Amino acid sequence: MQLQVKESSDYIALAQSLAEEFAQTAIARDTEAGTPKQERDRLRQSNLLKLIIPKEYGGLGETWITALQITREFAKVDSSIAHIFSYHHLGAVVPHIFGSPEQKQRYYTQTARNNWFWCNALNPLDRRATLTPEGDYFRLDGIKSFCSGSKDSDFIPITATDRDTNEFTILVIPTQREGVNIQSDWDNMGQRQTDSGSIIFDHVLVHPDEILGSRELNSQPFVTIRACLTQLNFTNIYLGIAQGALAAAKQYTRTTTKPWLTSGAESATQDPYILQHYGSMWVDLQAATCLTDKAGELLQAAWDRQWELTAAQRGECAVAIATAKVAATKVGLEIANRIFEVMGARATSNQYSFDRYWRNLRTFTLHDPVDYKLRDIGNWVLNDELPQPSFYS
Amino acid sequence: MQLQVKESSDYIALAQSLAEEFAQTAIARDTEAGTPKQERDRLRQSNLLKLIIPKEYGGLGETWITALQITREFAKVDSSIAHIFSYHHLGAVVPHIFGSPEQKQRYYTQTARNNWFWCNALNPLDRRATLTPEGDYFRLDGIKSFCSGSKDSDFIPITATDRDTNEFTILVIPTQREGVNIQSDWDNMGQRQTDSGSIIFDHVLVHPDEILGSRELNSQPFVTIRACLTQLNFTNIYLGIAQGALAAAKQYTRTTTKPWLTSGAESATQDPYILQHYGSMWVDLQAATCLTDKAGELLQAAWDRQWELTAAQRGECAVAIATAKVAATKVGLEIANRIFEVMGARATSNQYSFDRYWRNLRTFTLHDPVDYKLRDIGNWVLNDELPQPSFYS
Amino acid sequence: MQLQVKESSDYIALAQSLAEEFAQTAIARDTEAGTPKQERDRLRQSNLLKLIIPKEYGGLGETWITALQITREFAKVDSSIAHIFSYHHLGAVVPHIFGSPEQKQRYYTQTARNNWFWCNALNPLDRRATLTPEGDYFRLDGIKSFCSGSKDSDFIPITATDRDTNEFTILVIPTQREGVNIQSDWDNMGQRQTDSGSIIFDHVLVHPDEILGSRELNSQPFVTIRACLTQLNFTNIYLGIAQGALAAAKQYTRTTTKPWLTSGAESATQDPYILQHYGSMWVDLQAATCLTDKAGELLQAAWDRQWELTAAQRGECAVAIATAKVAATKVGLEIANRIFEVMGARATSNQYSFDRYWRNLRTFTLHDPVDYKLRDIGNWVLNDELPQPSFYS
Amino acid sequence: MQLQVKESSDYIALAQSLAEEFAQTAIARDTEAGTPKQERDRLRQSNLLKLIIPKEYGGLGETWITALQITREFAKVDSSIAHIFSYHHLGAVVPHIFGSPEQKQRYYTQTARNNWFWCNALNPLDRRATLTPEGDYFRLDGIKSFCSGSKDSDFIPITATDRDTNEFTILVIPTQREGVNIQSDWDNMGQRQTDSGSIIFDHVLVHPDEILGSRELNSQPFVTIRACLTQLNFTNIYLGIAQGALAAAKQYTRTTTKPWLTSGAESATQDPYILQHYGSMWVDLQAATCLTDKAGELLQAAWDRQWELTAAQRGECAVAIATAKVAATKVGLEIANRIFEVMGARATSNQYSFDRYWRNLRTFTLHDPVDYKLRDIGNWVLNDELPQPSFYS
Repeated sequence: MQLQVKESSDYIALAQSLAEEFAQTAIARDTEAGTPKQERDRLRQSNLLKLIIPKEYGGLGETWITALQITREFAKVDSSIAHIFSYHHLGAVVPHIFGSPEQKQRYYTQTARNNWFWCNALNPLDRRATLTPEGDYFRLDGIKSFCSGSKDSDFIPITATDRDTNEFTILVIPTQREGVNIQSDWDNMGQRQTDSGSIIFDHVLVHPDEILGSRELNSQPFVTIRACLTQLNFTNIYLGIAQGALAAAKQYTRTTTKPWLTSGAESATQDPYILQHYGSMWVDLQAATCLTDKAGELLQAAWDRQWELTAAQRGECAVAIATAKVAATKVGLEIANRIFEVMGARATSNQYSFDRYWRNLRTFTLHDPVDYKLRDIGNWVLNDELPQPSFYS
Repeated sequence: MQLQVKESSDYIALAQSLAEEFAQTAIARDTEAGTPKQERDRLRQSNLLKLIIPKEYGGLGETWITALQITREFAKVDSSIAHIFSYHHLGAVVPHIFGSPEQKQRYYTQTARNNWFWCNALNPLDRRATLTPEGDYFRLDGIKSFCSGSKDSDFIPITATDRDTNEFTILVIPTQREGVNIQSDWDNMGQRQTDSGSIIFDHVLVHPDEILGSRELNSQPFVTIRACLTQLNFTNIYLGIAQGALAAAKQYTRTTTKPWLTSGAESATQDPYILQHYGSMWVDLQAATCLTDKAGELLQAAWDRQWELTAAQRGECAVAIATAKVAATKVGLEIANRIFEVMGARATSNQYSFDRYWRNLRTFTLHDPVDYKLRDIGNWVLNDELPQPSFYS
Repeated sequence: MQLQVKESSDYIALAQSLAEEFAQTAIARDTEAGTPKQERDRLRQSNLLKLIIPKEYGGLGETWITALQITREFAKVDSSIAHIFSYHHLGAVVPHIFGSPEQKQRYYTQTARNNWFWCNALNPLDRRATLTPEGDYFRLDGIKSFCSGSKDSDFIPITATDRDTNEFTILVIPTQREGVNIQSDWDNMGQRQTDSGSIIFDHVLVHPDEILGSRELNSQPFVTIRACLTQLNFTNIYLGIAQGALAAAKQYTRTTTKPWLTSGAESATQDPYILQHYGSMWVDLQAATCLTDKAGELLQAAWDRQWELTAAQRGECAVAIATAKVAATKVGLEIANRIFEVMGARATSNQYSFDRYWRNLRTFTLHDPVDYKLRDIGNWVLNDELPQPSFYS
Repeated sequence: MQLQVKESSDYIALAQSLAEEFAQTAIARDTEAGTPKQERDRLRQSNLLKLIIPKEYGGLGETWITALQITREFAKVDSSIAHIFSYHHLGAVVPHIFGSPEQKQRYYTQTARNNWFWCNALNPLDRRATLTPEGDYFRLDGIKSFCSGSKDSDFIPITATDRDTNEFTILVIPTQREGVNIQSDWDNMGQRQTDSGSIIFDHVLVHPDEILGSRELNSQPFVTIRACLTQLNFTNIYLGIAQGALAAAKQYTRTTTKPWLTSGAESATQDPYILQHYGSMWVDLQAATCLTDKAGELLQAAWDRQWELTAAQRGECAVAIATAKVAATKVGLEIANRIFEVMGARATSNQYSFDRYWRNLRTFTLHDPVDYKLRDIGNWVLNDELPQPSFYS
């Protein structure tokens, strides 16, 4: 961590060294589940929480390209860490995207200054949280599910429905505020250290300037950019999981797998079918990587345009991201399943925990259905219609 | 269990009622791993351990067709139980296949009389067990891995190398014999209650009449039938897992899955892509089922021919079984992975343990490589060469 | 053709010998397209046109199982012949299914006596043909597309809309009737000798007793059986094409293909990837065959029940047929494409015409969309709803 | 053709306008087969034959990136033209790669000056051509198969075995030289206007300075670059075919396809499964395009390094090309087959010739087996071994 960081490549190197560290305990932590408190603190110490915050607000001023690359590095060894790291950025930019210039400045500055760790409670499909005016303030009540990274976080972006106006509203509050009750109810088959459980809001005080304004009121394309950010963050995590799985399999095949008794091969590494599996997995993985990298460049260009972003530019970016996401989902699941065939029966021992790649990817790729991503893409290809911006596309 | 059993269909009904019982605890037992002691005892009480033993020796005299159907029923809800149930039969017929007529009679009779539960320690790829002559006896030393069903078993079939003759030998001994040390070292990602760990043999006394004779010495096709039995037992377990997974998914989609927000469908059960997934899974599953049933008929015919079985008949049976196994492996893994897409993100909660279908199948399908099954089949299709009989083909 | 035919197997042997004959000219006739007049006459001479007609009416009284097997034999070498042979049966039973008992008897009897060759002009998607009352008669006008086997046929079943009642009506008329103008407009990439072009009906006289009654008026399940017959006839043709393609490839690989220079294999028949391709194609082909055979048994059982057939029985039969059809479509296209990889570049020479398998299958499998077969199946699997009987399901 | 060409994009625009022209007759010429004489002359007039020749020798000095893009444009509408256009460049650079500096200069200069159209007779798998010393000259005898673009060509690169030294030699001679007999024996199912038949060499005079030196004598990596050029030219043609097929399908679906009767969709363009097909085809096509473009950049970089190219750089380039080629092969065949499902049965009419995409791609992708490309890639992924340079890898 003593690395003198000045360039993007330095941040990536820093992330890789952190990833090596996280890898040591990844299997044990997957079993334990719960909050990766120590790793979260290492992220805090690393300065990487400020990665995406512009330098003018005290951040590192890095691009999404760097942020996504780092996310991918983490995902190779521990996709839960990558998940909460991603959601931190996705949370930290919420005031920028949905808020006023003043809110953007305030939250960026304070996040950088206080080294805040953001999380996520936006889940727009869960409409149980409500906002009720009470004098000069509001009260937040209800529940949100799938609140990734909520435990040990510092700030929470939330969607809630205004009881008076019925408007769907985005707000941000500190995690420590009274009435915010984070549940320990995330016990799922994958992404086990993401704390993606529920938060119960019990008469939580909300200041007017914590309310970022309504997405619906704002018709400029940039206000819909967060779905692109989210989807490409996910894509990079899927890709990282696949890359990590392939690397782990390679290591195992080379060191441990024995040639099959009728293969005629001197070693497993010369088995014609094992070579074929590796070749095939590689081709698909490179394809997904290529698409993901290209989408990253489009996303950064879209981000750079800010409020100048046009609907067409936003749409093309969304299509590129959807394309990469579908590819990464497909190849990732294929690799997570297929690696066992190049490793053999003994690789199912829990000492290796090789099933975690599949469990993590299978869990996370269900965030929103790949079937509808394909339909969106198809609609664009066939009918030249851009995806309708939403929280998912 | 009070069922008056007289026909095959009664045994299947009995097995289904046991399966319902096992299903109640299957998720908890998958987490715990270890020995399914209570379920093993229920199998003992059910009389089903005598299923395949001819009536003349006190057994139920059922066919493999019935036995495999029952195995499939168990596998739908608990593939570990199906696994040990299968290996019981595969063990109980070892003296019949490899032994003298006297040995066949003796072990069948005693198995039926004592309601013995057999297991497996044949693993021919593991050549660390040796047999050393000592006076009128032999001593068994060394270790065997992948000894499914060994804990709580009554009898063990073992392969060992004779130190004098270097011959590869099959023997059977009671599990309780001094020097048989069953290790508690099975901790794998799937088939968790199969106790497929190691046994250490420490100077274990072996009587000459417990040695069944050498496979190599016997050139008649019937002596190679066990690989067919084994492979088709596995196939039925794979198939049962797939059928169980699909049934569980159906139940979930119908009761719990919500339609996607842009689907335009009133319910998830009307979503065009969800219908497509079910249709596609069904077609492949029916195909594998059809092939497996057909292979079962061929296997039973081969079994009925006993020592009259020709190499060609044995070979065609082996090809049919390999064909079914490849199909069941492929569709099983596909279904175990794909069910999540018709259920959605919330189905990853550990309360459902839906990942166990994939973990179980992924683990068990690695027993021997599907790539070499395909090569064997291809060699038969293209070159009209029957598979070389071995412990795996 | 001198074969003394008494049993189903004799008819199949007869068909095989005809198939061998047709195979000699199949490539040339595929290039020429047009009407396979000589082959049609050989079918007439073979007596096989009476195959499905009950013995009481002068037919051979064979089952659909035999008819479908023979269709498959033809399809292995010439799917156009199989196509018109299928549509003959599908036409010859139209009066049985849709007509009165008298019409059934009359047309069966005359078909057997006159050795009529039937064709098809039912195409219910094409509603351009109309029936207009004129005195005691009707006049048929308009056009029908996709009229397979129309040239050189003796009798035509047609759907037309009654101009007065707007009812959708089925009628049968002799091909030679005045005003029936068969167009020579079938020039498609596959199934080139099926004469599946248009017929123009120009003021064609139709006698009242040539009108079979309306499908809509008849609510008994048996009246919807023809879609099952049609779909399973198609399935057997798809399957036959796939089987023929694989057999042709096998012959070529064994005699002509050279091992690749880096394969290390002495012959192409020992190449590990070529063996894998054959193994994989075989597994899928056996699966489709198994499903198709099983559907054939269900179809025959449904046919035997005649007017006792229940909606549930009809529906289960339809699902089994749809399942087989989807499987045969998928594996057929896969094989028709993949055989080239086990043969090599020189196999693309037109002297072999190996592309005709793909052209024929690709053309014929578009009859109705496989996507909607899958949806129907999915709806049955997930929602326990039988396919809605129609001309296609 | 009056376009004032100054930049790469101008050449691409020029090629696109030529492609539009070629498209008008592509279907008819596919049926006729034979030599596309008029189109070859249009290429001559277009100046594009000089595309890759450095400016110092009178060429246009364009990069492979431009050349490959143009090849792709041609392949979209006529892959035979793309094929001979590719082989022209692959021939024109043969003296550069295998010859002396003087030969490189001479042939580049004369090709540019005379607007020569090159072809291919290198086929190293066909060793029937021999070179015999005769006084100060040599005599070339024997036969070469798969000589793409030979008819109407001006210059031919040939491999032949020196009868004295048994050395495998590369030479170039004018097509018009006495004794060069181009056969009209290319009648294959695809790439029908590529004239990829045989040439018989009958005592053809060869001057010593027409012999380019032996590949085996030269150990520098650059001398093995032609396989990379060839393979990536092919890849771009495969990709172009796929892109052309998808574009044609889109046009057809939008204008002609009717919605299926049970689809509930108002138009085929709103059918959920048709949208899915387009989405899925697009994702895979974008993936292959991305990989192909990336490989193009690596290839150009390798080409620019010329004799400084290291084995590692060459190897990484070869792996990237192989990866792109496998992806383009797979998606291309998939699209060429699948487009019919989004168009429907009427699209099989020969007026559209939509089967030519599949016939062309299926034919051309057999040039060398994709199975061994995958093995090469797998060997690199698993064992870190670069592909052994050859005429194919």
